[in-house]
Amino acid sequence: MRIFITSLLLLVSPTIILANDQLIPVSEKTKKTAALLRDSALKNNSAYEILSSLTTEVGARHPGTPGEKNGIDWGVRTFKKLGFDKVWTEDVQMNGWVRVSETAEVMAPYYQKLVISALGRSSSTPEGGLKGDIVEFETYADLDKAAQGSLQGKIAFISNRMERKIDGAGYGPANIARTKGYMAAAKAGASALLIRSIGTDDHRNPHTGGTNIFKGVTSIPVAALSNPDADQLERLFALGHTPKVKLNIKTKDLGPIVTKNVIGEITGREKPNEIVVIGGHLDSWDLGTGAVDDGAGVAITMAAANFIKNTVKERPRRTIRVILWGAEELGLIGARAYAKARQEDGTLKDHIIGSESDFGAGPVYGLKSSEHVAPKAIHVIDTMAGLMGPLGVTRRSGGTMGGPDMIPLHALGIPSVGLMQNGEDYFDLHHTPDDTLDKVDPKMMRQNMAVWTVFAYIAAEWPGTFK
Amino acid sequence: MRIFITSLLLLVSPTIILANDQLIPVSEKTKKTAALLRDSALKNNSAYEILSSLTTEVGARHPGTPGEKNGIDWGVRTFKKLGFDKVWTEDVQMNGWVRVSETAEVMAPYYQKLVISALGRSSSTPEGGLKGDIVEFETYADLDKAAQGSLQGKIAFISNRMERKIDGAGYGPANIARTKGYMAAAKAGASALLIRSIGTDDHRNPHTGGTNIFKGVTSIPVAALSNPDADQLERLFALGHTPKVKLNIKTKDLGPIVTKNVIGEITGREKPNEIVVIGGHLDSWDLGTGAVDDGAGVAITMAAANFIKNTVKERPRRTIRVILWGAEELGLIGARAYAKARQEDGTLKDHIIGSESDFGAGPVYGLKSSEHVAPKAIHVIDTMAGLMGPLGVTRRSGGTMGGPDMIPLHALGIPSVGLMQNGEDYFDLHHTPDDTLDKVDPKMMRQNMAVWTVFAYIAAEWPGTFK
Ligand SMILES: [Zn+2]
Ligand SMILES: [Zn+2]
Repeated sequence: MRIFITSLLLLVSPTIILANDQLIPVSEKTKKTAALLRDSALKNNSAYEILSSLTTEVGARHPGTPGEKNGIDWGVRTFKKLGFDKVWTEDVQMNGWVRVSETAEVMAPYYQKLVISALGRSSSTPEGGLKGDIVEFETYADLDKAAQGSLQGKIAFISNRMERKIDGAGYGPANIARTKGYMAAAKAGASALLIRSIGTDDHRNPHTGGTNIFKGVTSIPVAALSNPDADQLERLFALGHTPKVKLNIKTKDLGPIVTKNVIGEITGREKPNEIVVIGGHLDSWDLGTGAVDDGAGVAITMAAANFIKNTVKERPRRTIRVILWGAEELGLIGARAYAKARQEDGTLKDHIIGSESDFGAGPVYGLKSSEHVAPKAIHVIDTMAGLMGPLGVTRRSGGTMGGPDMIPLHALGIPSVGLMQNGEDYFDLHHTPDDTLDKVDPKMMRQNMAVWTVFAYIAAEWPGTFK
Repeated sequence: MRIFITSLLLLVSPTIILANDQLIPVSEKTKKTAALLRDSALKNNSAYEILSSLTTEVGARHPGTPGEKNGIDWGVRTFKKLGFDKVWTEDVQMNGWVRVSETAEVMAPYYQKLVISALGRSSSTPEGGLKGDIVEFETYADLDKAAQGSLQGKIAFISNRMERKIDGAGYGPANIARTKGYMAAAKAGASALLIRSIGTDDHRNPHTGGTNIFKGVTSIPVAALSNPDADQLERLFALGHTPKVKLNIKTKDLGPIVTKNVIGEITGREKPNEIVVIGGHLDSWDLGTGAVDDGAGVAITMAAANFIKNTVKERPRRTIRVILWGAEELGLIGARAYAKARQEDGTLKDHIIGSESDFGAGPVYGLKSSEHVAPKAIHVIDTMAGLMGPLGVTRRSGGTMGGPDMIPLHALGIPSVGLMQNGEDYFDLHHTPDDTLDKVDPKMMRQNMAVWTVFAYIAAEWPGTFK
């Protein structure tokens, strides 16, 4: 029996068998305070209130638009209003891109309007639009096999539909159509690419999203059809027709623009230079109001740090830095700039551990740690998971990069945790006009805030290091 | 005990106590055939297939658009392909109205785009749009109390939200904001009216719909906000702000146009002049593809009549006339013209009984009869209900007009039945871009078709009269 228990523990926590004197324990006081924070956070509505303010008073926050500027002002104003110890912004250079307008119509065999959304960095169609027969491919891989020049004058269409999974595992396999599809279509000579929206819903709301930039590949017009509109094209094919479609897409490259990371800190009482990073991305797609992507992450992490500040007597040992990253949706632009700047100013080493909340407002159910968390610190992550247990969170194995905007820091060896959220409904809303506050359950925001409070507090208070 | 049973029966079927020799029974053979039709219809997919054809090969069918013309051609072609005995169209004069474009933006205190849809017969805003402070009213009745001229330069906003009910009972009380609101707003001097969409969903899809025409009332720009956008305005008010909104609405009065009722008949073997009317309306709002409103009704009734023709050896005694009414959404225009023409040509008296399917594709759960069904014929309706029992249908008391397009015939004394459908989800989709085929369950189409087969067959075969 005893052996059985030991081997079970080994699966989750190999470090538990290290000699005790090598481990710096999480003190009883810290655990007690974390439990208190957790329980009182569950009664605190501030994360939802912050999210309500962001979506109501700002809305969509796409780089290069007035909404983004309003969002940045809101971030600074809100951090200050909450009484964060330090608040600042950091400029980030980027190339801006905005949507102007887009229409799509089936011209033959039967006239129908289609609902589409241009994807990030799509080029415009020629003045007056373009027409072409649709050539259907089930997946990106199928399109990628099309011979060079074989789609001359045609519009390629990738019809794959993402599967609904709790952890969003259906996203990656389908989403390559969005990120790389235009390159394969351009290579085959297609005049444009349409994809079925990368989303799990059946509403007439297309899912926009970024495309990857590849050097030397000419951009073409590329847009997502709503799921019902993709069904419509598929039904025409099933009837033996080759639909002819007219596309009229106008977009605008803004050239060099400046976005910002907005940062607020709760300064550590003992090790102010040592930093625990939490946050979300402040930018959002232009179609919705950025409630679940990623107003929720912004609000949860701002509220968690603020709640720690307001609830415990002293500042935690280390600094808790809440970063509202800029221009995530166009390629982690703010996050890459942040990591690069820390390499240059020598403070990268002071980043002790971090995590981003960027998977909506569903409840957290799992805690993972990255491979950069040292064996001697794994027991701290286990302790966090134990304290999150009453919130429905269990310790999970498998890797994490700590969220999209943590990827650049993760690549530089910074430890991170992944707070896994139930994302079953996330891809109903993700990157659509439907990403609005009414989709968010205040109770789930409280659960998230309680989880993040436990993580941030223990990470900042535990005297050991995670590296 | 016996007395108790008798009085119960009295509630539903007062005629049961008439002397038996006054009643013409439904023959055992007719009942048996109806049961056979019912059971085999449950295995027949033709209603769904007809609906798939209509939404895929036509789509939106708004009066005055190419889609309407395509729909009319489809109706004639489909009746003929199915082998109906007679197929024709009847011209109907009307005034056309179409949407051109519409945008709405909150200009102050915070910039946000709003998603709206102009309502039927809305006028255009002045070139370049109009701006005004929003004045909120909870209901039409509240707006109607506003003093003359009190809303000069303002945009009125009715915020009531319809309740979700199985029978759509939440629609009427809220919908007066849509049909009459603009008149109250104009009377008070408002430059435009916004209403919260009359719908039960929370998607970023506004619900359009008609407005009533009142002589001497000048039309103003009038549009519906999606529910999340109406929430946004309400949150601004809750924060103590008066939102200033810019509207840019372009619509076009087409002047006199011709729409058509499309009619197909299964001619009666014994009383060909006597008519049982079934059908749905062929027109649909421009935003969706008219799947649940009212492609479903069109498909269910066409399929039911066709299934009777193909399944029973002889034609039923009377004619089954399937009417695809035109321009229902702009005020029962086709239905009024149909009834007027029958008054004029003297065939009104030959309309024995009728019903329209126009409440989506949810299952039928109840059968009502109108007050024009004579006491001596009530037992036939009861028999129909009994035969529909295995399909989940029960006999219901209370009045009916037999569906929207039956209203003009009902007003002229023609008997009708109401086949009550579960409409809990209907107002999630009604008049939105989301009204597409994927929302329809083929199994529910089979249930509907089975129900309509029982009604139409017995109504056409029973030798007695319903009047
Ligand atoms: Zn995101
Ligand atoms: Zn209808």
